[in-house]
Amino acid sequence: MAVADSASAGGYDLHHHGDREVAPGLVDLAVNVRLPRPPAWLRAELVSALDDLAAYPSSVDATEAVAARHGRPPAEVLVTAGAAEAFTLLASAFRPRRAVVVHPQFTEPEAALRAAGHEVSRVILAEPDGFVLDPALVPADADLVFVGNPTNPTSVLHPAAVLRSLARPGRLLVVDEAFLDAIPGEVESLAPGFPGVVVLRSLTKTWGLAGLRAGYVLASADVVERLRAVQVPWSVSTLAGVATVACCRPSALEEAEKLAIAAESDREYLVSGLTAAGVPVLGDPRGPFVLVRVPDGASLRARLREAGYAVRRGDTFPGLGPDHLRLAVRDRATTDAFLTAVREIS
Amino acid sequence: MAVADSASAGGYDLHHHGDREVAPGLVDLAVNVRLPRPPAWLRAELVSALDDLAAYPSSVDATEAVAARHGRPPAEVLVTAGAAEAFTLLASAFRPRRAVVVHPQFTEPEAALRAAGHEVSRVILAEPDGFVLDPALVPADADLVFVGNPTNPTSVLHPAAVLRSLARPGRLLVVDEAFLDAIPGEVESLAPGFPGVVVLRSLTKTWGLAGLRAGYVLASADVVERLRAVQVPWSVSTLAGVATVACCRPSALEEAEKLAIAAESDREYLVSGLTAAGVPVLGDPRGPFVLVRVPDGASLRARLREAGYAVRRGDTFPGLGPDHLRLAVRDRATTDAFLTAVREIS
Repeated sequence: MAVADSASAGGYDLHHHGDREVAPGLVDLAVNVRLPRPPAWLRAELVSALDDLAAYPSSVDATEAVAARHGRPPAEVLVTAGAAEAFTLLASAFRPRRAVVVHPQFTEPEAALRAAGHEVSRVILAEPDGFVLDPALVPADADLVFVGNPTNPTSVLHPAAVLRSLARPGRLLVVDEAFLDAIPGEVESLAPGFPGVVVLRSLTKTWGLAGLRAGYVLASADVVERLRAVQVPWSVSTLAGVATVACCRPSALEEAEKLAIAAESDREYLVSGLTAAGVPVLGDPRGPFVLVRVPDGASLRARLREAGYAVRRGDTFPGLGPDHLRLAVRDRATTDAFLTAVREIS
Repeated sequence: MAVADSASAGGYDLHHHGDREVAPGLVDLAVNVRLPRPPAWLRAELVSALDDLAAYPSSVDATEAVAARHGRPPAEVLVTAGAAEAFTLLASAFRPRRAVVVHPQFTEPEAALRAAGHEVSRVILAEPDGFVLDPALVPADADLVFVGNPTNPTSVLHPAAVLRSLARPGRLLVVDEAFLDAIPGEVESLAPGFPGVVVLRSLTKTWGLAGLRAGYVLASADVVERLRAVQVPWSVSTLAGVATVACCRPSALEEAEKLAIAAESDREYLVSGLTAAGVPVLGDPRGPFVLVRVPDGASLRARLREAGYAVRRGDTFPGLGPDHLRLAVRDRATTDAFLTAVREIS
């Protein structure tokens, strides 16, 4: 029997993620999840839902909650088992003539496209330009385009107007907004809807839910229907559904906004400290992590590990190399201690 | 952009399942989950794991637990988000020349094959033969064959020797053993391994975990590798992994065996009562549910609903019709009350 083969990824380990860099005893600046555990109000709802686990899951309530939160009809919402599932659904449901991934960015979209047997063209944004998105770089015949906003790992936030200029008939523009709820006011989001645009969201990062797998897709009803047709039945667990409803409540959105404002302040503190320590931050970071380039990055990363800090290697991202490191924004005490370590071993 | 199209399913709603037939206030004989909620020891483990949800899930521990439980190397185990995910992975990873589904059976394998764009040939086992599997019915050129054991909805348990006779080089024989842990002694299981055989298991039915999505695949290492390559990253949630480890412990296996013995006794009680009420049970039921055929089944089903009982319609299963109903085995008090209702409205 023939086997579905994935194409070469050009030497990059597209399945490498920050979770592989953490280890017991290390302070984690490698993973972009922001809370150390789900907040108490969310944990309480999850505990209650454990008694409902005998029933098969239903996404009806979560779908309606997401629709209400973003002011879109439920038919334009697909609740997913994390944003990661959405990449696979897009790669399964569509047969692009030319799929384009704008790098450097999260590598799972490209991995999902390749696993489904599609060829992938890469657009690499340039570091000297601050990883700014130049729409002219995207080939005119690209009919499936993946962009992250804000982009992991560069932390660059592309203007909504630039993204909208990339949308056109016959093209699906997929904007991965997994970190957009970490931007105060959710500025530059395309979640309210735009023709030809598919928005992916995650609850994982803000709410400490990476282990639960909770996210969703916002798209036109026909795209949602196509994705639903290839989704594994009952893919979204009862607990992920409960978490989705809870995190769409106005009180949760207010809390997320406060967290986003605090993260912004914490990020500015980290950027100042890094700059003072002689470690330049690249681009104009807007998300809850920053990208740096240092001489002999692999060695610095190893020395930081010895000093008790896990940071995210950059060389698994197309367009970056071993001297790039991604650092999660943490509270000021953690940042202070980290900067002390950086200064001591530099 | 071209779209992946699913073929016609010949008028059957392959995505209809018992969970659509239950409603508040109805006694549920439609869904095959056996416990009303996870047992206390399992619930306690899930509660503890809620504090670990900020970390990305890892299937390492669950894989090792399943391997130890079945005496197979970890490389022959793939932990999945329920057995349903396994159908999609098989349909994505392989390109069968001729995929065959042995019906009547759970319809999601065929739905997954069709969603992935494959043609599906149906082998329909005959009611007059008690839905017994005649290997000669499976076409010689079938290179991907799906059989359920025990089969949902017929409750027939195929002998392992008959299943082994269907395996051959160049063919993958997928045996869905989602209900096999409900058979005392797990007799006729192919979980210990046989060349060319893929076994699917679920934790959902025995442990009241349908909402959590927990199951696994047992297969040769090369097949597991192929399936893993198309699996959504982090597909199995932290809680599903914790539940898998817990349900593979010797104490859980002992408890499952006791539940299976009790279910056997409860099933015999139900079969006797149905027979006495003039409702013949089809085949030789061995699982925790039975299949019956009644005159004017759609009407009886509606009247049972009015009387407060949800039963599973049979007409969405290829090979069955509106006069077929599937009934879950429940405790004797529930069965007594149900049989009283049957007698009153017949």
